[in-house]
Amino acid sequence: MTEAAQTLDGWYSLHDFRTVDWTTWKMLPAEERQEIIQEFLGLVEKWNKTQAEKQGSHALYTIVGQKADFMMMILRPTMEELNEIETEFNKSRLAEYTIPAHSYVSVVELSNYLPAGEDPYQNPQILARLYPELPKAKHVCFYPMDKRRQGEDNWYMLPMEDRRNMMRSHGMIGRQYAGKVKQIITGSVGFDDYEWGVTLFADDVLQFKKLVYEMRFDEVSARYGEFGSFFVGNLLVEDRVQSFLHV
Amino acid sequence: MTEAAQTLDGWYSLHDFRTVDWTTWKMLPAEERQEIIQEFLGLVEKWNKTQAEKQGSHALYTIVGQKADFMMMILRPTMEELNEIETEFNKSRLAEYTIPAHSYVSVVELSNYLPAGEDPYQNPQILARLYPELPKAKHVCFYPMDKRRQGEDNWYMLPMEDRRNMMRSHGMIGRQYAGKVKQIITGSVGFDDYEWGVTLFADDVLQFKKLVYEMRFDEVSARYGEFGSFFVGNLLVEDRVQSFLHV
Amino acid sequence: MTEAAQTLDGWYSLHDFRTVDWTTWKMLPAEERQEIIQEFLGLVEKWNKTQAEKQGSHALYTIVGQKADFMMMILRPTMEELNEIETEFNKSRLAEYTIPAHSYVSVVELSNYLPAGEDPYQNPQILARLYPELPKAKHVCFYPMDKRRQGEDNWYMLPMEDRRNMMRSHGMIGRQYAGKVKQIITGSVGFDDYEWGVTLFADDVLQFKKLVYEMRFDEVSARYGEFGSFFVGNLLVEDRVQSFLHV
Amino acid sequence: MTEAAQTLDGWYSLHDFRTVDWTTWKMLPAEERQEIIQEFLGLVEKWNKTQAEKQGSHALYTIVGQKADFMMMILRPTMEELNEIETEFNKSRLAEYTIPAHSYVSVVELSNYLPAGEDPYQNPQILARLYPELPKAKHVCFYPMDKRRQGEDNWYMLPMEDRRNMMRSHGMIGRQYAGKVKQIITGSVGFDDYEWGVTLFADDVLQFKKLVYEMRFDEVSARYGEFGSFFVGNLLVEDRVQSFLHV
Amino acid sequence: MTEAAQTLDGWYSLHDFRTVDWTTWKMLPAEERQEIIQEFLGLVEKWNKTQAEKQGSHALYTIVGQKADFMMMILRPTMEELNEIETEFNKSRLAEYTIPAHSYVSVVELSNYLPAGEDPYQNPQILARLYPELPKAKHVCFYPMDKRRQGEDNWYMLPMEDRRNMMRSHGMIGRQYAGKVKQIITGSVGFDDYEWGVTLFADDVLQFKKLVYEMRFDEVSARYGEFGSFFVGNLLVEDRVQSFLHV
Repeated sequence: MTEAAQTLDGWYSLHDFRTVDWTTWKMLPAEERQEIIQEFLGLVEKWNKTQAEKQGSHALYTIVGQKADFMMMILRPTMEELNEIETEFNKSRLAEYTIPAHSYVSVVELSNYLPAGEDPYQNPQILARLYPELPKAKHVCFYPMDKRRQGEDNWYMLPMEDRRNMMRSHGMIGRQYAGKVKQIITGSVGFDDYEWGVTLFADDVLQFKKLVYEMRFDEVSARYGEFGSFFVGNLLVEDRVQSFLHV
Repeated sequence: MTEAAQTLDGWYSLHDFRTVDWTTWKMLPAEERQEIIQEFLGLVEKWNKTQAEKQGSHALYTIVGQKADFMMMILRPTMEELNEIETEFNKSRLAEYTIPAHSYVSVVELSNYLPAGEDPYQNPQILARLYPELPKAKHVCFYPMDKRRQGEDNWYMLPMEDRRNMMRSHGMIGRQYAGKVKQIITGSVGFDDYEWGVTLFADDVLQFKKLVYEMRFDEVSARYGEFGSFFVGNLLVEDRVQSFLHV
Repeated sequence: MTEAAQTLDGWYSLHDFRTVDWTTWKMLPAEERQEIIQEFLGLVEKWNKTQAEKQGSHALYTIVGQKADFMMMILRPTMEELNEIETEFNKSRLAEYTIPAHSYVSVVELSNYLPAGEDPYQNPQILARLYPELPKAKHVCFYPMDKRRQGEDNWYMLPMEDRRNMMRSHGMIGRQYAGKVKQIITGSVGFDDYEWGVTLFADDVLQFKKLVYEMRFDEVSARYGEFGSFFVGNLLVEDRVQSFLHV
Repeated sequence: MTEAAQTLDGWYSLHDFRTVDWTTWKMLPAEERQEIIQEFLGLVEKWNKTQAEKQGSHALYTIVGQKADFMMMILRPTMEELNEIETEFNKSRLAEYTIPAHSYVSVVELSNYLPAGEDPYQNPQILARLYPELPKAKHVCFYPMDKRRQGEDNWYMLPMEDRRNMMRSHGMIGRQYAGKVKQIITGSVGFDDYEWGVTLFADDVLQFKKLVYEMRFDEVSARYGEFGSFFVGNLLVEDRVQSFLHV
Repeated sequence: MTEAAQTLDGWYSLHDFRTVDWTTWKMLPAEERQEIIQEFLGLVEKWNKTQAEKQGSHALYTIVGQKADFMMMILRPTMEELNEIETEFNKSRLAEYTIPAHSYVSVVELSNYLPAGEDPYQNPQILARLYPELPKAKHVCFYPMDKRRQGEDNWYMLPMEDRRNMMRSHGMIGRQYAGKVKQIITGSVGFDDYEWGVTLFADDVLQFKKLVYEMRFDEVSARYGEFGSFFVGNLLVEDRVQSFLHV
């Protein structure tokens, strides 16, 4: 048995993808739709307050294609809070006009393939990454992934040193995209069906493709990466909620 | 052909995951919803009585994410009792407002990769593990798993001695989490689609991730483990049923 | 090309799994439900008559877990009869309150990895196995399976002699369960998605787990077995139909 | 790169599987059901005319098990005609009471692993196979298949000569079933999810199992065959449409 | 780590597949259906204008078989525009009578396995391929694909030189179909579940089969190609929309 990498864990995370049932939504009187939108914006307002108090963060994006119409990504200090927010949304009137499309449960994670010797929880940069305020980038990309355990390509049988070297080279690709793509890694071992979730934020959507494609040639992804479904979307600022739901 | 490990088998187990149909639930008059909740709590009261009489046990958890809204885990001495409880729930009024989301049928199992020489069914510690009272931990994690039979990585072709050694090392990881994570293994060969179900209970939800991740580097999991869907949730004590279903 | 084993084929078989739509079922007046139950018991009565005349056989079991609520297993001399029974059930009033959950089409099969020299169709024991009356055992277990064709583990590339030896050893495990588990093998090559269906009957449900688990260490299963979904259930004698459907 | 086999291509083919929604069908007044059946038989009458004029062919079969209730197999000279027939059925009244269950788009194909030297399109036997009238056999079997491209078992990397030899031996098994099973191979590369569809016709349904099982030991299938879902059914002559849909 | 090929990226692309709910569509008064068709043709008219202004392109095809009834392929300079068009369609009245069947999000891509030395974005031929006007060919074929990363067959571990050579030979097959099949490759790494989408246009539908089949013997596909679902369809010119939707 090889040694497991230590991880640093921050806020718990829920990605909640929803599809709008436009047919029933359109049947409502305009006034009622307006009330429902206001109720939803009230929820968002509460989330804004939590974010201002640095007790969590959230992001809203519309999703391109039929996989979902929009995504809410929510970060909170406990699983209980995620569950409450999800249930509160489910009980809201807007939920009556949406269909659950996908979800992902994880926790913000920093993989500690780093030299030892300092207490990472004293490092303000690390704390900022464990408890991040999600950026208002124009675009989001989400996908879950596993490290492969298949015949000769078994990540979990590799010596720690090899994994560390590969992760370092992997990280260097990511760093070339600094300022272009912000990357939030969330761990989901024991929480959901893949081992990690990757959420990317960028103002230029093409950078997602460039980053993921370049990484695919890196041995960590080429030999050891297994990828789930990809979701790509556009920022849904609160001002755009009205027009998005206007029919 | 190598020798099969002997197993000790206790209570039969049903994990029953449900999603609430909030839209139709909200349409009901408050009074009617109250009656339905009372009917459901009456069922739980019967299960409590069975548990007090040590004729079975049960646990209720809400589930985070869209896979399900809540889970009922039921232990009973016979498959017939599990079937009756399931059918009784299906006929209850609450069931009209829930959608089956997932289920798992298994039996509490202790894998006997242990030295011979004693009659395990005389051992009170073993009996307590075969016929457990499910803990009221704050969090639950459930996933099914197989031992892999794939090319060079074929668990069922390994000599008994190798399997015993690997399981011993595997068990030692689990023991490091004693007091933090309670683990109930249920066997499902011949009963459901995977070979085992793993149900973990903990007050600190992060311990699930740490335990499962650490074990993944252990050869038993790294080379021989195949995992199904993971469900994670929060304790649904009876007092919380009211607020969970309150709309 | 290696030689195919000869098979002996008996009655055609349909496993028909159904889920009850309890919500709409409960909406019916009690009297109407009673009429519908009587109509269904009338169908079963016809099947009983066919069975008494040795022109087929059938079994009814409730299924544990959400995969289905009950299963009808029907044996008949022709595919046309299976199709008619299925259509007759589909047109019955009970069918309006059930949802198709799964089905399997196959034919009772004896695999002739046996020494040559006798005409098996003259052997009364073999005839009894090809045209069996399904037992009234307390429990049923059903699963479909394939022989693997994967890299080095390719059953269909093995010499006949090797397959025969492995099947003999495999059969010997089965024989140890004689009197405890009755096993009906049905072939489904060309009829359904797996190559075989396995239906086990036992009064002690734990024997299914013991038998399937023990066999999994046998090379035939360990290296060459691919298994589909497992269904486990409890005998639904006609007297229990009333209480099962009583709401 | 090895050489691709040349193929001869005939009529385009649509397999259209449907499930009857018996509950809503039964709600109709008998008279209305009768009108709907007549409208459907009118469609079939048009298809009969096309077949008599040798401009296409079709077959109707009921399907055993829950995968579908019936299948329409349609052959026509162009994709546009298939699309029109499909849309015409979709707009028919019977379609309101059926649910699409599966479909397959392909083209009748002869694989030209044959000695060169003649113009196959001048050969009346070959023309009869490219533009066949579908037989009125009692039973049908349909399944799609791929040639495997997996590690050492990669059909598309084999030299033409090896593929030709294996296909010849494969064809010889088929020929042993001449008079018992009629086989129509349709190519679907670029049209649907597998590379070929196989449609078998026989008066003795057991011959499907014997043929497919025997072929599975042939290297072409054993090492290189990947199979999709199998559908088996019984001839639905026009006279039987009435009784099939009678409730 | 081997070097990633550079790609040139043009317009963003959405393939949107829809199934018509004929039953509810037929329930509408003819007049209302006519209004709805006019509203849809109004949308198409807007797309035509965009195309005339060279700010995007689109194509409409009916799909053969049950996977979908029709497909809209839309090219635009930004993800936001794709999202708006999709949402505008979702809010249209025709959408009430369609069911989402499949979608694919990607970007027109030229893979730059070409000799260096020129600025491709100055090349008018390349610009015409990055910002194409979709042809009005009689037939369309769409499928997504991955390059395989599996054991010995791992595209992303190959040296750049080997990949370039294989892609050159692959491209030469494509070139033999010049004038017969127009091919648009769209990249979807980071955007959707496969790495590329392939959209083929031809007046002779059989050329799709010939091209894809011939390429399958090419090492790039034989060893390194993984293919998703295939969709094939017929041109839906605006004049045909009326008859397609006429009931």
